[in-house]
Amino acid sequence: MPTSPRIAIFPGSFDPFTRGHEDVVRRGIGLFDKVIIGIGVNSTKQRYFPLDEMAEKVRKTFADESCVEVMTYQGLTAKFAQEQNAHFLLRGLRNTTDFEYENAIAQANRHVFPSLETVFLITSPSLATISSSIVRDLHRHGQKVDDFVPYAL
Amino acid sequence: MPTSPRIAIFPGSFDPFTRGHEDVVRRGIGLFDKVIIGIGVNSTKQRYFPLDEMAEKVRKTFADESCVEVMTYQGLTAKFAQEQNAHFLLRGLRNTTDFEYENAIAQANRHVFPSLETVFLITSPSLATISSSIVRDLHRHGQKVDDFVPYAL
Amino acid sequence: MPTSPRIAIFPGSFDPFTRGHEDVVRRGIGLFDKVIIGIGVNSTKQRYFPLDEMAEKVRKTFADESCVEVMTYQGLTAKFAQEQNAHFLLRGLRNTTDFEYENAIAQANRHVFPSLETVFLITSPSLATISSSIVRDLHRHGQKVDDFVPYAL
Amino acid sequence: MPTSPRIAIFPGSFDPFTRGHEDVVRRGIGLFDKVIIGIGVNSTKQRYFPLDEMAEKVRKTFADESCVEVMTYQGLTAKFAQEQNAHFLLRGLRNTTDFEYENAIAQANRHVFPSLETVFLITSPSLATISSSIVRDLHRHGQKVDDFVPYAL
Amino acid sequence: MPTSPRIAIFPGSFDPFTRGHEDVVRRGIGLFDKVIIGIGVNSTKQRYFPLDEMAEKVRKTFADESCVEVMTYQGLTAKFAQEQNAHFLLRGLRNTTDFEYENAIAQANRHVFPSLETVFLITSPSLATISSSIVRDLHRHGQKVDDFVPYAL
Amino acid sequence: MPTSPRIAIFPGSFDPFTRGHEDVVRRGIGLFDKVIIGIGVNSTKQRYFPLDEMAEKVRKTFADESCVEVMTYQGLTAKFAQEQNAHFLLRGLRNTTDFEYENAIAQANRHVFPSLETVFLITSPSLATISSSIVRDLHRHGQKVDDFVPYAL
Repeated sequence: MPTSPRIAIFPGSFDPFTRGHEDVVRRGIGLFDKVIIGIGVNSTKQRYFPLDEMAEKVRKTFADESCVEVMTYQGLTAKFAQEQNAHFLLRGLRNTTDFEYENAIAQANRHVFPSLETVFLITSPSLATISSSIVRDLHRHGQKVDDFVPYAL
Repeated sequence: MPTSPRIAIFPGSFDPFTRGHEDVVRRGIGLFDKVIIGIGVNSTKQRYFPLDEMAEKVRKTFADESCVEVMTYQGLTAKFAQEQNAHFLLRGLRNTTDFEYENAIAQANRHVFPSLETVFLITSPSLATISSSIVRDLHRHGQKVDDFVPYAL
Repeated sequence: MPTSPRIAIFPGSFDPFTRGHEDVVRRGIGLFDKVIIGIGVNSTKQRYFPLDEMAEKVRKTFADESCVEVMTYQGLTAKFAQEQNAHFLLRGLRNTTDFEYENAIAQANRHVFPSLETVFLITSPSLATISSSIVRDLHRHGQKVDDFVPYAL
Repeated sequence: MPTSPRIAIFPGSFDPFTRGHEDVVRRGIGLFDKVIIGIGVNSTKQRYFPLDEMAEKVRKTFADESCVEVMTYQGLTAKFAQEQNAHFLLRGLRNTTDFEYENAIAQANRHVFPSLETVFLITSPSLATISSSIVRDLHRHGQKVDDFVPYAL
Repeated sequence: MPTSPRIAIFPGSFDPFTRGHEDVVRRGIGLFDKVIIGIGVNSTKQRYFPLDEMAEKVRKTFADESCVEVMTYQGLTAKFAQEQNAHFLLRGLRNTTDFEYENAIAQANRHVFPSLETVFLITSPSLATISSSIVRDLHRHGQKVDDFVPYAL
Repeated sequence: MPTSPRIAIFPGSFDPFTRGHEDVVRRGIGLFDKVIIGIGVNSTKQRYFPLDEMAEKVRKTFADESCVEVMTYQGLTAKFAQEQNAHFLLRGLRNTTDFEYENAIAQANRHVFPSLETVFLITSPSLATISSSIVRDLHRHGQKVDDFVPYAL
């Protein structure tokens, strides 16, 4: 049995963090000793939901889960994982389009940090059609999006 | 940190067990405390490589890995997992066709054994085009298949 | 407004008819004046659930829907549609694998009966991973499948 | 038989409206009592073909079809459908990439307007590789695009 | 400029050879000095259209093309290519399902005959939904299939 | 045997040219008498790696291959092919997403230059997950990318 804890990063821009994301994190909890939700900061892309506000909402969502942490980071995900001593990336797969994108990213990440393993869970079917971009679009047009996110907006 | 060990089943018919399968198991070792390679016995389907011989070859392949075990089983994979107290299924994804099949199977398995989580690793690209059926076909026609399996045939 | 009724065939082997199938039919009801659930008889393929028993169960499922009819048929689906004066086939799409298969079938059907239009609804995500073959497999191994079919088995 | 007319929206940016779009509308005519071609106005995206000019060309294309109407709209498609008392969205599927995108959009639309059903026809194969972006690209470089659009440009 | 002729095998079971197959061969003619249509004989699979009859029909289809030859072969396609001194396999791609299958086969073929290169043309869209299995099914049910094959049946 | 040479264009923006691109060109050499690597100039899109520098690096990569030429071009690829008297486009396919995109482009190219045939090779699996955009991203963040490009950066 390994003696060092299994730490995973769950990376994304989370603009916003959805119930689909929540589903993957909750199911990943049993697999790892610690799951760090890493909100990537991309300086060239304007967010719709402010970074700090989103980080706070995600933190509250997992307030009862001591093994879940929320952090923000800049730069390459693989570098962030290395700094956090995380040997795993946790990712959700929703459909076949996700698969090919994730495959390319996973290989690039192993190039940067060779011992980084990407672990996939398939998003629960009833949540798999939720995407952050659709939630933004609905919110922008004044629709309630409570069914799509695990906190009040 | 969880106190019960994380046990995973890596299920398949493994007719034969390929280097692609080996790749997924070796990468899964870091994720689980024990990985049971479960060779499913399907009484209605004639195997090309005999069951016992294949089990033995797989056992030798992982002789140095104390956390890998090889077993054969009949019936539903989810039931076998439950009997082994395994809360995880480990599966390799090679391409988008795999994805849709695995998605359907994963949901059915959770129906049988609700706390069973299926965890996916993407097969390393250089091994992702290997399939058991192609290896059988090459072997049947007298081709050497040493590049495709991690043991002598 | 058209004066002739819009009649659709919902064809399949339905071995068994699942909640995914039910979902498509119920949503198709608003679109057509009559939906005929056509259970195709393939003399070369042994059914798991007997034809007459299945037809009866489907009939009861839609007992309250006067515009739904259940029939069995042999031969080409397009010919059956023509005989029933049905100018539409109703089909559910679950995933991308379905799409390519259905595309090929739809073009062939138009060849046989040129005015036959195939109309697709996407199966509701929470039901999209149910397949008849998985239900058969679970049932064969003594599992309860009530969550997957809209009647008692 | 339903007493209220079946009205469908065929939504898109139609920049430009192609023969692939025309194919779907013409085949959808038999299915609905009225088809409203809804040209969505996205204030943040600059059109290549002016909105009014395109609306006029599409109107002329269907001048002989009394059940086809052409309108422009702003905001969410589902809201526009609701305003028009349209309970159906008509969409063409060209390939598997379309499928996964449309699946996500369809679920979001039902969230906004629960009784809105999205109905798909598969674009005829000989027209399925036409996309508005390719037609724009050809036109921008001075190529004739008469084969791709059902009107003179 | 190479001094040895470029010879390609176009392999398949061709049960039957369709207009889709014809399309790929005719377009491949400009690419190779010789195209050998290789009808693979699989002793474990019963053909619907007799082998010799099909070979003869294909031969007549290309009677005017001196660079097209029709042969039958047993065993591995890569071995047949090697015997014919053919360094290329010509294959048609119809859709994404074809792609993943062909990818696996192409890598296996290079294993058997390392200098064998598989060259793909995309089947013309209007022919891409034709499959041999659908043509067999229509023919079995007494339908005319002249639109799908380039000879009389 | 044809008397005119078989000339192919291998088109792309190559920002940067990767080992995946190199793989396709080297394997295409046996198929054509001349392969022109055409670096498309898109005036509306800012390059990350300067055009002239990239052209020079690609030229050096193939310095020993007399049948490979490197050119830059503006406008439609099909027009460039026509000007170069090239009747073939050479393209690499990495996955199913590539397939559908390439299919649409190939049909449009034939519209512009009807005798232009697009020929596909499947990128070798170990290189298929490399994409120019990922290489740019790694380079931008100061990572070494030597494993991904066939020259020093």
